[in-house]
Amino acid sequence: MRFQQLLHVRRLVSAGATTLMRRPITTTTITTTSRTALAATYPAFATTVRTMAGSGAPIPELTEITDNVQRGNYATLTDKDVAHFEQLLGKNFVLTEDLEGYNICFLKRIRGNSKLVLKPGSTAEVAAILKYCNERRLAVVPQGGNTGLVGGSVPICDEIVLSLARLNKVLSVDEVTGIAVVEAGCILENFDQRAREVGLTVPLDLGAKASCHIGGNVSTNAGGVRVVRYGNLHGSVLGVEAVLATGQVLDLMSNFKKDNTGYHMKHLFIGSEGTLGVVTKLSMLCPHSSRAVNVAFIGLNSFDDVLKTFVSAKRNLGEILSSCELIDERALNTALEQFKFLNSPISGFPFYMLIETSGSNGDHDEEKINQFIGDGMERGEIQDGTVTGDPGKVQEIWKIREMVPLGLIEKSFCFKYDISLPLRDFYNIVDVMRERCGPLATVVCGYGHLGDSNLHLNVSCEEFNDEIYKRVEPFVYEYTSKLKGSISAEHGIGFLKKDYLHYSKDPVAIGYMREMKKLLDPNSILNPYKVLN
Amino acid sequence: MRFQQLLHVRRLVSAGATTLMRRPITTTTITTTSRTALAATYPAFATTVRTMAGSGAPIPELTEITDNVQRGNYATLTDKDVAHFEQLLGKNFVLTEDLEGYNICFLKRIRGNSKLVLKPGSTAEVAAILKYCNERRLAVVPQGGNTGLVGGSVPICDEIVLSLARLNKVLSVDEVTGIAVVEAGCILENFDQRAREVGLTVPLDLGAKASCHIGGNVSTNAGGVRVVRYGNLHGSVLGVEAVLATGQVLDLMSNFKKDNTGYHMKHLFIGSEGTLGVVTKLSMLCPHSSRAVNVAFIGLNSFDDVLKTFVSAKRNLGEILSSCELIDERALNTALEQFKFLNSPISGFPFYMLIETSGSNGDHDEEKINQFIGDGMERGEIQDGTVTGDPGKVQEIWKIREMVPLGLIEKSFCFKYDISLPLRDFYNIVDVMRERCGPLATVVCGYGHLGDSNLHLNVSCEEFNDEIYKRVEPFVYEYTSKLKGSISAEHGIGFLKKDYLHYSKDPVAIGYMREMKKLLDPNSILNPYKVLN
Repeated sequence: MRFQQLLHVRRLVSAGATTLMRRPITTTTITTTSRTALAATYPAFATTVRTMAGSGAPIPELTEITDNVQRGNYATLTDKDVAHFEQLLGKNFVLTEDLEGYNICFLKRIRGNSKLVLKPGSTAEVAAILKYCNERRLAVVPQGGNTGLVGGSVPICDEIVLSLARLNKVLSVDEVTGIAVVEAGCILENFDQRAREVGLTVPLDLGAKASCHIGGNVSTNAGGVRVVRYGNLHGSVLGVEAVLATGQVLDLMSNFKKDNTGYHMKHLFIGSEGTLGVVTKLSMLCPHSSRAVNVAFIGLNSFDDVLKTFVSAKRNLGEILSSCELIDERALNTALEQFKFLNSPISGFPFYMLIETSGSNGDHDEEKINQFIGDGMERGEIQDGTVTGDPGKVQEIWKIREMVPLGLIEKSFCFKYDISLPLRDFYNIVDVMRERCGPLATVVCGYGHLGDSNLHLNVSCEEFNDEIYKRVEPFVYEYTSKLKGSISAEHGIGFLKKDYLHYSKDPVAIGYMREMKKLLDPNSILNPYKVLN
Repeated sequence: MRFQQLLHVRRLVSAGATTLMRRPITTTTITTTSRTALAATYPAFATTVRTMAGSGAPIPELTEITDNVQRGNYATLTDKDVAHFEQLLGKNFVLTEDLEGYNICFLKRIRGNSKLVLKPGSTAEVAAILKYCNERRLAVVPQGGNTGLVGGSVPICDEIVLSLARLNKVLSVDEVTGIAVVEAGCILENFDQRAREVGLTVPLDLGAKASCHIGGNVSTNAGGVRVVRYGNLHGSVLGVEAVLATGQVLDLMSNFKKDNTGYHMKHLFIGSEGTLGVVTKLSMLCPHSSRAVNVAFIGLNSFDDVLKTFVSAKRNLGEILSSCELIDERALNTALEQFKFLNSPISGFPFYMLIETSGSNGDHDEEKINQFIGDGMERGEIQDGTVTGDPGKVQEIWKIREMVPLGLIEKSFCFKYDISLPLRDFYNIVDVMRERCGPLATVVCGYGHLGDSNLHLNVSCEEFNDEIYKRVEPFVYEYTSKLKGSISAEHGIGFLKKDYLHYSKDPVAIGYMREMKKLLDPNSILNPYKVLN
């Protein structure tokens, strides 16, 4: 009977991407054009389109007050400074009113008190701004799409916000070599759209793609859902142009995959969160977009089965595996409760996996995925699921995954952790934390990029709760450090984790980070209060 | 008729990897065990096994004299120093005699005059050596397998040679995550062998694999023949342990794909050629080894057809393409003349390509490769060739590619250039250079990693010839710079190219490289006379 079921699965899959087993997918296909309507009906949906919409958490108090921040020894902005910037950029690009969206972080956890937002339109203008600020000792926070989760892209006190939003052009895309050159303020989704026009794809994809800037992605070394296939940005980014605090333009651009001429300094700007320089332009290696994309959404009974399924996916799907995501039942259920437009094709399992394949031959890929699912079912590791190659349905399933983090902040305060852990210990921390928080927390759940050993641990409660805070931190960092994991897999350090850096880096390394900072930003005007404490 | 030929091709390929068209492969399968015998018969073969064997060029004069090098202001080695090191390491690991193999570079172009070779057995010993040398102001050159091509791994004057050869252990290999931890002195082939025991493969492969050290590969950001599939080492290397000139150990190790905790300083040690620190340990992401590997060796009539075939390979082979190499007829013929044990399955074409696929399903891969070759033949772009999936024959074809660079130095002096160029201008420089050199040069040829826009331009002559030298340099760098290419795609800068760095990097960038050097090696004891002039 099991075998008949398998054959049934294969027939359905071969027939062209529909329901594997029990239930058909009933969600509406979400296309780009229908997004506006969806956002109107479901405000939270707009968070993937427009920053700062959606979170139901109240506007926070100023972080300088709540976190007792000692303002650095910087100059205070004067009218003369504003007049200087107006002359430099034109009045339209010097904002002094309605700055809330620039001052408050995506999670509504951090709120700065900046009085000035500058919107330069060229690298030269960025350079002129920084040169002036450096001479005047005015602190500056570079800001992209402001979708970061560690308070790295908002002011903490009264830093000037340097928005990269106008540097938004895709400058070139070479369809033969796959190399694209893009300005830092280009929205990730727009960049990907342009790459797709010539048969390429940006190797980075994440839930915030409709808002986040590629320059911000690079500055935070963003990970996302395809690292398992395309690796991290240190491999994909071929060149960077960065403006230093002094206003010097550091041209580390390259339109080639290989360039071994001197020290590979561009990597200092990948993941340093705007504290060493402002990325203004970059070149990126974009793989060919795949002719066939399939997504399987499967239910499993235990984390042990999840691990076995991951190993099987690596073996059976090999070079076409492009994503391997985990969602636990509490994370999924919270998203389904908050966003009624989502429909999960399966329910009732403690664990779910979203497995994506991307390949150049649809028939081959279907055969591989059928084999993988059939084997998993036969061994009793995969319980139920759906597989689809229909682009609309693929997008619907991805939407479930993308809405999971938003579900947790929709009407709650959420303590978010983003850790790398050995796979064998990957999920334990979620159970441990649930035990520690007890009924104080409304949801304690885990999801994330299993294929990269990267867990997003979330603890939700009605509003910020100091008792929960103390139960969670620094315990989560100590736990991670004992397993030699990373206390920040992909979100970065920003403001929120700067006191915990030592859990993942030793004093010698931190000492040299400080020296790098001194060397590249001697007056420490760039993104103060972040990364290093 | 053309169609019949195509069908014939497909049948042959499906039958299991044999000759596509005219001639069968007749070379003997070269296995690891037969290497010693081959090396005895054909001395040049041993260059892939043992450094310094093979090249027919005479022992050069001391570089300090030929290149008029001004010795740096370093201390001179004393008996007391030697006694100190003997106490530290034991007498067996302090060498003062028969140092030629450590003093002369692989190409026999550079010859240093070191009087001391140290062979530490642990990171702590490396640290103790450097601390002592830094305090005494003794200059040090770190040395791996000494297979570099720009004089980066040999002394220029009397620097102490710090050999990493004893730090040769593979410390761990995780077959689930694919992450391996290895000491710097491990030979690449040994590392790969260990990875293969658990179904993984090291993502780096190059001709010198039987001699080169993984630490040297990382220190030079080595490229090799699989960059088109697995990307560069900045993506694959997850962590690095480096000893600084001061003797401080900088622990930037990570056993995870994702770790965004602070500045990503490990990249400063990837490609800085031992001038900023000595890499002693690293972790690397190793992909699963492929169940099916196929190699096609094809002949083409023009470089235009080569480019079209590359584009077709990317489209048709997609995710299974693992190598795309070019060899021109002069490069191939020189290798065939020098090494009679090589047999090319085809001949008579101006261009040859070696295209490799690696995948998880042999049937699928054969179908893709048949489609690719069939299409190329039908369009008249591919003229003739062989395709094979037999491991022995795959190795034989690779051996042809690997022996090409050795053929050019077997009985000649060879000016070697390693440049990144836009694909549309990729091969022009070879014709231009042939014209410039005229009959002075015996062979002017090009081969390399077409898939990475990386050309190896070679100009051979009987012995070093100043007239050729002047015709080639700086012309080749100026030409590359005008096309915004890289004057060193993968070989690095070392000693030989340090005066040309400005052709690929601007003064601001070079200025900050100098600052990085001062910060990490304040007394400039590490690998002097290299990278920066």
